[in-house]
Amino acid sequence: MSHGVKKVAAVGVGVIGGGWIARFLLNGFDVAVFDPAPGAPAAAEAMIANAERAYRKMTLAPWPTRGRLTFHATIAEAVRDADYVQESVPERLDLKHRVLAEIVAAAPASTPIGSSTSGFKPSELQRGLATPERVFVAHPFNPVYLLPVVEIVPSPVNDLAVLDRAGAFLTDIGMKPLRVRKEIDAHIADRLLEAVWREGLWLIHDGVATTQEIDDAIRFGFGLRWAQMGLFETYRIAGGEAGMKHFLAQFGPALKWPWTRLMDVPDLDDALVERIAAQSDAQSGAHSIRELERIRDDNLVGILLALKANGWGAGELLKAWEGRLYQSAHAGARAADLVPGEPLRLHETRVRDDWADYNGHMTESRYLQVFGDATDAFLAFVGMDAAYLATGSSVYTVETHLRHLREVVVGVPIAVETQLLGHDEKRLRLAHTMRRVDDGEVLATAEHMLMHVDTGAARASPFGAGLAARLAEMAGAQTTMTAPDWAGRAIRSIG
Amino acid sequence: MSHGVKKVAAVGVGVIGGGWIARFLLNGFDVAVFDPAPGAPAAAEAMIANAERAYRKMTLAPWPTRGRLTFHATIAEAVRDADYVQESVPERLDLKHRVLAEIVAAAPASTPIGSSTSGFKPSELQRGLATPERVFVAHPFNPVYLLPVVEIVPSPVNDLAVLDRAGAFLTDIGMKPLRVRKEIDAHIADRLLEAVWREGLWLIHDGVATTQEIDDAIRFGFGLRWAQMGLFETYRIAGGEAGMKHFLAQFGPALKWPWTRLMDVPDLDDALVERIAAQSDAQSGAHSIRELERIRDDNLVGILLALKANGWGAGELLKAWEGRLYQSAHAGARAADLVPGEPLRLHETRVRDDWADYNGHMTESRYLQVFGDATDAFLAFVGMDAAYLATGSSVYTVETHLRHLREVVVGVPIAVETQLLGHDEKRLRLAHTMRRVDDGEVLATAEHMLMHVDTGAARASPFGAGLAARLAEMAGAQTTMTAPDWAGRAIRSIG
Repeated sequence: MSHGVKKVAAVGVGVIGGGWIARFLLNGFDVAVFDPAPGAPAAAEAMIANAERAYRKMTLAPWPTRGRLTFHATIAEAVRDADYVQESVPERLDLKHRVLAEIVAAAPASTPIGSSTSGFKPSELQRGLATPERVFVAHPFNPVYLLPVVEIVPSPVNDLAVLDRAGAFLTDIGMKPLRVRKEIDAHIADRLLEAVWREGLWLIHDGVATTQEIDDAIRFGFGLRWAQMGLFETYRIAGGEAGMKHFLAQFGPALKWPWTRLMDVPDLDDALVERIAAQSDAQSGAHSIRELERIRDDNLVGILLALKANGWGAGELLKAWEGRLYQSAHAGARAADLVPGEPLRLHETRVRDDWADYNGHMTESRYLQVFGDATDAFLAFVGMDAAYLATGSSVYTVETHLRHLREVVVGVPIAVETQLLGHDEKRLRLAHTMRRVDDGEVLATAEHMLMHVDTGAARASPFGAGLAARLAEMAGAQTTMTAPDWAGRAIRSIG
Repeated sequence: MSHGVKKVAAVGVGVIGGGWIARFLLNGFDVAVFDPAPGAPAAAEAMIANAERAYRKMTLAPWPTRGRLTFHATIAEAVRDADYVQESVPERLDLKHRVLAEIVAAAPASTPIGSSTSGFKPSELQRGLATPERVFVAHPFNPVYLLPVVEIVPSPVNDLAVLDRAGAFLTDIGMKPLRVRKEIDAHIADRLLEAVWREGLWLIHDGVATTQEIDDAIRFGFGLRWAQMGLFETYRIAGGEAGMKHFLAQFGPALKWPWTRLMDVPDLDDALVERIAAQSDAQSGAHSIRELERIRDDNLVGILLALKANGWGAGELLKAWEGRLYQSAHAGARAADLVPGEPLRLHETRVRDDWADYNGHMTESRYLQVFGDATDAFLAFVGMDAAYLATGSSVYTVETHLRHLREVVVGVPIAVETQLLGHDEKRLRLAHTMRRVDDGEVLATAEHMLMHVDTGAARASPFGAGLAARLAEMAGAQTTMTAPDWAGRAIRSIG
């Protein structure tokens, strides 16, 4: 649906208000702000800078032109011509009442007014307001510019059409509005968080765990699952093909056990079991358990790889594990003999599913990645190790000629054969042939010119003595080989 | 430390036992299994297949040779020569006692024996055993082959040297052993999970939310945070530069409020506040709040991108948002006029930080990715849209000549200019020039030969009439341009 929002007002610049402002602005909306604190403009700018940095990494899509940010002396001035207002003042009901009354009095009559409150019910916020029907809870999560969920909570007096418009606007700026069915203290997510928080405080209080240990129990464990599926879908998988009822039968008795300090437990009677099972079917029944397992595993692998790229948490652990695997394998590779008259086979891999284009074939640039890895393996083979790189020398590719001969689909094992075509004191020329491991079919070829560089001076420099000697030895061993007929060729002209 | 483990025994093949077996085997360890259920071998094989599929996506590192999997008729036979034993039978104390007694009687005297129990304390498991000092809790999380954390819980009678050896082994197979200081029902993670579970059941019981809504509140919100930081580090950031005490002062009062149904709450007195603040400093004090914000944001972006690649959850939402951004921009691009005698500029991007090599420069294969994206933009420009592709035609790159002229670092905006060098009825030849947007410096060039293909028949085919007409029009507009001097050249030989 169309939301009609062009200009937004934000009242309050804290961690949450600032995050809202950043999300609105970077999505192209003008934002008029009221916050009497002297540091508010600087705080907003810092948050916008954070958000801009994150969005730059998150998408290559062309952003809309950033909106205009203005600060105002009064709430009335800030909200006067706003099509949407977000209130994010501190969590004190008297303060919220005063601020919301001013907003309601000055904002255009049709403007939706969302409150970022973590805990208050909308009916509590609405008390005494002239137009309570357009004031509702719109509770987001820190950092607001990245986390999508926003709990939209109405009271019985709310005009639901206003909430629909607000929801359409929030969806447009990349959020996930979650309409809460019944108002309740702390809505949904903060109730779950508060339960964990209370239990966490007990664990520290009782000397069972430290903050670090509790955090590690989360981020190396169930936290990874919760980034992609929640509590119930995860447990549905654990229940296996027998389904949610089986899981409930298995773990239901634990509700009576002292597994948390929080013992006010609901009765898991038949009616509740039936309700949960039916809701879980509605939620996840379209996928078999096997499908859910694969979806979950693909997501977990993706998350682990993302964390690995950042060297953090479970990803750092994966990196260390992988490092040990490579170490064992490299020990083997160094022992490989150079057979005179034969190309070297130093690099093998498999076509990964995230390398596929929309046809399921290995995408163009991944061919070059595989050849680049083969070049790295060759350079390691002739002695360019970490110690050599640390001296401030490296080898850069200056020219490449690729021929794509066959398509190759995900999962196929591939290997690269390498021949040294020539070298002088600063350069070397390589020919790589990419083959399927299973039937030897040639998939692609690459010819490269590489240059030895002094990375500090950023200019060409001669190979170190060790490398030069090893290259000479290589050239000797491969001297009986003829260059492939595709080497030294240009792309022909047409048309 | 060295763990000395070569052979492992696993007693019980369920969701957890099967996950253990897969992790052991794929890390190169032989596994001897006891499980009397007729379906056990098939269940283990299914779990191993899941794990192998996930590992193939998770790493390109060469795996160790998969271990040997054997099934045995008795526990004694399975554990006889095992260097590590993992028990994963159902959660009944009498059954655990019987099984552990058999393991202890038959396993070599120095073999560590871990139990996968979710809830029992090690002292409960040890009751009546001949050698209780080597039996401990080693509680993992589903899927065991992907989630790293394993809670290692000793009782006062345990031999801690045995637990150290077990921890070294589990670390070696990629896990994160978390030593729990004091035995307690349900250890650490399941206490937190049980608290959320109880609160979740109340929300469903009270008609506040469905399973889907609870899961969405998690996976579009705090679940994303918890994949990389836990409860306390996340809240430390929310507290801002004022730190953990400020956060506790801000949200402490909520402990007295009915924010969950679980009201058995610890007293947040000065001593507890001091303890939490000190532990949080020890955990996260090495990073400023600003640094933690950036780490968090980089991780969240990485997780969102991983989920986007899988089209799931918060990533699916990101994809939709990005789609809208592109849509607006494409509307603009289509309107771009073809200026006779000038190259087209159809593709602009920025060097992303995950494109960097170890020197912080854009890595070799990403140059080709950028050129590939420019080729796609060109093909879209001449009319190869989704509808055209749906007819079973496409255009593949068959040959590429790249020249890398300048290094380019992360964050730099780059643009590609494109010239049509020639075409016939099935082929086209393009020249791309990659420039910095800011100063126009030429960073790299690419020459490509592309072939129109019938994707069903997998062979060359003539361009459709619309595309052919548009190419002819393009050629006309660019006919006054001369080909760049680097086009049609080969890599020269040396040495």
